[in-house]
Order: sequence, then structure tokens, then C-alpha cells
Amino acid sequence: MRPLKSLISLDDAKKIIDKNVKLLNRKEKIGIENCLDRVLAVDVKAGFDVPGFDRAAMDGYAVKANDTFGAGQFTPKTLKLIDTIHAGETTKKTIYKGDCIQIATGAALPSGADAVVMVEDTEKEKNKIKIFKPVYPKANVSGRNEDIKKGSIVLRKGDMLNPSKIGMLSALGIPVVYVYAKPKIAVIPTGKEIANLDEKLKEGQVYDINSYTLMSVINGNGGSAVKHDIVEDTFDEIKDAVKSAVNNDMIVLSGGSSVGERDVLFDVIQSLGNVLFHGVQIKPGKPTLFGMIKNKPVFGMPGYPTSCLVNAYVFLLPAVRKMSRLQVKKEKIIKTKISRRVVSTLGRREFLTVKIEKDRAVPVFKESGAITSMANADGYIEIPENVDLIEKDENVEVKLF
Amino acid sequence: MRPLKSLISLDDAKKIIDKNVKLLNRKEKIGIENCLDRVLAVDVKAGFDVPGFDRAAMDGYAVKANDTFGAGQFTPKTLKLIDTIHAGETTKKTIYKGDCIQIATGAALPSGADAVVMVEDTEKEKNKIKIFKPVYPKANVSGRNEDIKKGSIVLRKGDMLNPSKIGMLSALGIPVVYVYAKPKIAVIPTGKEIANLDEKLKEGQVYDINSYTLMSVINGNGGSAVKHDIVEDTFDEIKDAVKSAVNNDMIVLSGGSSVGERDVLFDVIQSLGNVLFHGVQIKPGKPTLFGMIKNKPVFGMPGYPTSCLVNAYVFLLPAVRKMSRLQVKKEKIIKTKISRRVVSTLGRREFLTVKIEKDRAVPVFKESGAITSMANADGYIEIPENVDLIEKDENVEVKLF
Repeated sequence: MRPLKSLISLDDAKKIIDKNVKLLNRKEKIGIENCLDRVLAVDVKAGFDVPGFDRAAMDGYAVKANDTFGAGQFTPKTLKLIDTIHAGETTKKTIYKGDCIQIATGAALPSGADAVVMVEDTEKEKNKIKIFKPVYPKANVSGRNEDIKKGSIVLRKGDMLNPSKIGMLSALGIPVVYVYAKPKIAVIPTGKEIANLDEKLKEGQVYDINSYTLMSVINGNGGSAVKHDIVEDTFDEIKDAVKSAVNNDMIVLSGGSSVGERDVLFDVIQSLGNVLFHGVQIKPGKPTLFGMIKNKPVFGMPGYPTSCLVNAYVFLLPAVRKMSRLQVKKEKIIKTKISRRVVSTLGRREFLTVKIEKDRAVPVFKESGAITSMANADGYIEIPENVDLIEKDENVEVKLF
Repeated sequence: MRPLKSLISLDDAKKIIDKNVKLLNRKEKIGIENCLDRVLAVDVKAGFDVPGFDRAAMDGYAVKANDTFGAGQFTPKTLKLIDTIHAGETTKKTIYKGDCIQIATGAALPSGADAVVMVEDTEKEKNKIKIFKPVYPKANVSGRNEDIKKGSIVLRKGDMLNPSKIGMLSALGIPVVYVYAKPKIAVIPTGKEIANLDEKLKEGQVYDINSYTLMSVINGNGGSAVKHDIVEDTFDEIKDAVKSAVNNDMIVLSGGSSVGERDVLFDVIQSLGNVLFHGVQIKPGKPTLFGMIKNKPVFGMPGYPTSCLVNAYVFLLPAVRKMSRLQVKKEKIIKTKISRRVVSTLGRREFLTVKIEKDRAVPVFKESGAITSMANADGYIEIPENVDLIEKDENVEVKLF
């Protein structure tokens, strides 16, 4: 057994990952009904003016503005109603001096008209319309291309498609768009001691937990997880699995957290590429490993479920979001007080799982091997390297899972 | 044309919606690899103890604690190594006085042993192990069921399945679970003036925008949107569409925002159920309508895209999340200063779309009919009823789309 030699700091580990994880350039075409939270891979230009015609901005009467000048509450101008345009309709009629046409919001302004009088400022008597308030030319009219000019770039490569940007695509009649593909990320569970969920546990075995927590973190942050079968912690089995997974965009292994098992992974990655770090000054997660094989990032996560999940939030999540071109996640943070005194180790950044109970952060960490250290937690607090004690009722920031 | 008569306040409108929208009780069974952010529909009990056996919490040697008493840095105790247990393995051998077995973290403790000495506190010489530090009974051992007791409830009905809770399901070997179904929400676009994205625009027409923004808001907040074909704004067509959609869990119509067209929707809903409000003291979104047909909530959204989207965030989103049993969304809020003076209407809550530029909130609202009022916005600010002016550089809170 080799001990972990030189541990690196959390900040250095994050920098190494960030330097090596690149934005994915692969594109795919999808329907806009499925493009929520996807990232646009092309600039989008307007193919036509929006609106494509002058239109009424209010319900009312299309008029020549000139015909309304001088109108007042006691001196209405009277115009002749020659037609009605409902929404989506048009008219072939033209407005001449003294005419008006009833018009619905959004409808195209008829030829000859240059303004709309709001319905509130009129009174109807058969086919005569009394106008009680004058309008200036272009009043209550949305001009052609006032909103979007043909040929202008309305959305840019790299924009994340939220509901309002999806609305812009539909305004331009674009039913399918190019977005960046989701990175395919292989998840490889290792170790004879773990069993598939559909198997009966043999003596000394536990179920595969890390595959499911890792897949959730990946799929929830722009990636597309591909689960590999469980492989034994031997050099040859792990090497075969990693080689077969290298056609994905990233590889994540999770397995035994012991020194001996880690060494196997270290040797495999060195034989196929380069290990960039192996061992970080954090707790839990000391044995975390990161390397590159043929330009593909490879993570070796701790085997204990709580360690694995916390490390997935700290290291894997930013890598997945970067590769997916999603902006760095705004962490969901709750500021509160801690329910009891906590001691920590100097010289290591510690991640302590907590639940929120009666507005307090209650530590739930039992030991790295306990599932409840993770499943009962709402998130975790970070205890800096230079702090060895947090007193009861001190303020803490909980990063939510 | 009937004007909107008595407008109700925003708060009253929200209360009416909240009172009438019920939690959905329908359940469905899904694989845990697809259950991220879904809501558990049953309590989950542990079917067995976790761990199912006493196990080593550290790499080292399984011993009888008694054999280590008195060991010290210069007075090691020497034990006989009789076997090695790797992770996932077990042994048939039993430890008697003076024996030890090398053991990996997580492996089952062999019979006869009651503690583990950490590898750091030992030295190996062939099949003799020198112990330099005594251990007490149960030292470095995780006891059977210390983590989870068989029969205990580990997850509760109503829990949202995040990665750590999905980890708990896998720890218990549960590959499929009952979750609450996503509410099916019909989206019905109305109006002759709107065209499908795959059609060529006729004179006076615009593309269907609201269906896509509404579907995005619904699908992004726990619902499952079902798009209906475009229907004309006539009593009969709308009535047929609403009747055919009433097998869904909720119905959202969006169409012409004019008074006349709203009246048609009002009459349809009154003929099939009850309109609970029609007209809210907000801007934009005054003509928003809400009713119930056969216990199904029905929303009538404004036709203008920006009005429709803002109202979807204010009224529809909380309704969808409630029905889906997702906790009320923590709004993503940015606190910043506004880039220019803004005037508002007294007596109405105003929602003003803004983008974030150089850390300032820059108003992008042109007019309700403009697509760019929405597509260029990162979110919106709320201007209270009793405020008619925000000065340049005043602090504002931007709610992000």
C-alpha cells in the first residue's frame, strides 16, 4: 500500500480541473418545444420584420389623424364607419377623408389610415362614430419593424434558452434550432463489494449508490450520464472499462476509497494518459483523483457515498456545467446558525453535511460510510482550513444539495 | 364590447388561485435513474439493516482488542497474520487469541474480531504484525444497523428526490419508486391572427409565441404541457377546445388581449363552470382571467407575449408548482440599481422587464406587443401600487426569468 503522497489544496485542485475541462463544441438540432435550458450553438437572425406591417396597438378606430384635430368632449368630430377588422383579419378598403374603420388590437392598419383612436374616446351611433379626443399621426400604432428589423441578430451563440428567448424563436417562426450537445459522461462503479440494485446482496456487499448520485448530479447540470456495469478493482478490469468509455466526453469512476484501490486507478490512468492530482487537502474526499486521457477529463471519486456526493458538488458539478456551457450555478445558500459545537481538523477544508431544522443547521454527519450522513442532509457547510472549532449558534452558510 | 368591470388586487387574485389549485394525487412508477426532482408518493421503509454486518471503518488489521492492550511505540504487541480480506470479500477463518487478519475499509469483520487497528499504527514482518497502539473494543468498526435500522422510515411521502435522497433509494436496493405524476396542462392558443411555426404568415398574422413560452414555464416547473391546435376566437370553437381539454389537470388559454375576445372566453368558462376573477390591478396583465371547470383550474392569459409571460411567472408558475407538489420556488433575485428614471401608474402593480447590463437593471420594455420587451429581458422588477416614480440609481430587485 502506498500512502497518498503530496496532497494539494482545494483551490489548486479546482484550478487544475478548470484549466483542463474545455467547452464542448458538438452541436445538435432540436425542436423548440424541447430546448428549455439548452445553449444556443448559432447566432439567430431575424428573417423578416416584426411586426411585418403597421398595426393597431389598441382596440379602436383607424382614422386619418388630421380628421380628429379639434375634437373635444363637447365638440366631437363625426366619422363614417366603413368596415370592421377583427384580429387576424385585413380589409381591402381604403380610408379617405371622413372615414374610419373599427380595428382590433394587433390587426394591420388599413390603407389610408395613420392613427388609431381608442374605443374609450368614442361613441357609436349606427354607422357614425363620434370622436371626443384628437390623435396625432402614428398614435396607437406599432410601426412595421419597430420591434425587430429583418437581418438583425436577435439571439447569440452561447445564450441559454429560457422561456423568453424561446418566445423569440417562435416569434420568428423557427421550429428547430442548433444547440450544443449535452456532454456524454461515463459513470463507472468499481469494486467487488458493490452490487447492482436488482441483485441479492452477498455477504459483505452493499448496493451501488454512487452511480445514482453521480448520474443525478450530472443529468441535473447539463450532462447526459451513461452508466457502465460494475467492474472489479483490478488493473486489467478498470483499464478495459476506461478504454471502452473514452469515446464519451468525460469519465467518472467511483469505488473503494482505500489507498490500495486508489493506486490501481492511479496506475490505469497513468498508463493511458496523465494523473494531474491524486489527493486533496479536504475532508471528506482526500483520495479524489483527476487526470486526462486523450483530452478527456477523468475523475476518480471516493467510494464512500457521502464523500462521493460532496466531492461531486465541489469538483464534478462545475466541470459538467462548464463543459455544457451553462453559466456557473448560483449556489443555493441559506444563512443560519449552527445547532451545536463542531470541531474540525486544522489544515484541511472540511465539508460537513447538515439538515435545516427549525431554521438551524443541524449536523447529520455520522461517518463517511453512513448513508444517512448524506440522505438526511439538506446540504453542507464549509469549514475553512484555519478553523478548528465552530461554537453553537455561530452563523454558517449552508450550500443546498 | 364590455369593459373589464371590477378589477381585483394582485394579492386577492393570488389567494383565489391558491385556494382553488389542489395538490395532484395521481401516482406513477419510475426508475430511479429518471426520478431527479420528482416528488415521492409513498413513505420508504428500510427492508434490511444498513450495514448488514459489522464492518471495518479503516484499512488495517482485525483483532481482539484485548490482544492490543499495553502496546506502545517501544513495546509493540506482535500478532500472527492468518488471512487477508479485500473489499467485498469475506473469510471463513475465525480470529483466536494472538491472531489478526488484514482487512480493507468496508469489509465485513471476521468472526472473533471486535476491533480494527489502523494500518498506520502497525508494521508488517512476513506473517507477523507489530501493533504500536492499543485499541478499545469496537474501535474503527461500523456496527451492524448503526446507519439504518430495518423497518425504519427513511424517506417520506412528499420528499423531493434530490441526489442524496436518490442515493438512499439505491442504498436500499430500490430500482423503481412511486412518485406523483406530473400534472398534464393543456395549452390552447386562440385567435385567427396567429399562425403555426411551420406555416407561412398571411397578411396581418404573427406566429404563435405564447404556446412556447407557456410550455417552457410549465415544463420547467414540474408540469407536462400538452399543446392544442390554434383555435379561432369564437364562442363555439373555444368551447369545443376547452371541453376536449378538460381531461387534463389544468387548462391555459392565451389569445387576443382585447376586451371583445376576453368576453368570449368569459362566456365559455361561465357556460362550463365558473369565472372566479376577470381583470387584475396589474400592468401588464389587466385582462387575466381565472376560473374552474369540473374542479380543473382554467387560466385565460393575455395575448401580448410580454404580458403573457410576465403573468405566467406571477400566476401560472405558483399554480403549476403547487399542483406538482414542488416547494414554492426560491425566486432567483438580483439586487442592483436601475439605470434610468421610470414612471409607473398609481393604483396598479407594475411588472417592468429589464436586462442586466454592467451590473445595472436596464428597462427593455417597449410596449406589450413587442417581442423584444420580453426576449431581451433577463427578468422583471415589481413596482408597487403606491409608487409612481423610481429615480435613476435607486435600488431594485430583479426577479430573473
